[in-house]
Amino acid sequence: MTADRFDPLDPVIHSPLRLAVLSVLISARQADFNYLKKTTEATDGNLSTHLAKLEEAGYIRIKKSFQGRKPLTECSLTEKGRAAFSAYLRALESYLPAGTKKG
Amino acid sequence: MTADRFDPLDPVIHSPLRLAVLSVLISARQADFNYLKKTTEATDGNLSTHLAKLEEAGYIRIKKSFQGRKPLTECSLTEKGRAAFSAYLRALESYLPAGTKKG
Repeated sequence: MTADRFDPLDPVIHSPLRLAVLSVLISARQADFNYLKKTTEATDGNLSTHLAKLEEAGYIRIKKSFQGRKPLTECSLTEKGRAAFSAYLRALESYLPAGTKKG
Repeated sequence: MTADRFDPLDPVIHSPLRLAVLSVLISARQADFNYLKKTTEATDGNLSTHLAKLEEAGYIRIKKSFQGRKPLTECSLTEKGRAAFSAYLRALESYLPAGTKKG
């Protein structure tokens, strides 16, 4: 046994869809709603709900505008979101079997 | 962008407490209830509920006996549980930022 404790996993991030969205935004910095929908294979309603949760937590910023007549919803990661995602990854390591884990 | 899809995360495993239990059993092969309780810092009721879910899924085996007059509940990982945990870890990689991800 190497693990003698498990760090708490931020419940805002641990949901698979929110984890996927943050993972996209970590790499892409900014992504629009349709891109996130395509990448995560979520429905409009489900994605909207989860984006709102991430925004409420202050982890992402959502900017709504129009591109011609089409609404454009752009999401980007905040500094708080980036820090929370890093902390989540560190906590996650405590759950991974020895060998894949740091220290 | 390197990620263009996210693999589904087994919901039986994704719960933090069940993930912690499996993580212990991966390393220790077998652990009794009190050890799991101490390591995961779960309450009796919560741990029992989650162990039952893992048993229902066929991921762990629970053996109840007595050690003198004290009940002993021993949990061990099944082959199915080991395979499911490996699959979970592979799926999880699709959510991790490039650099920590294989391929």
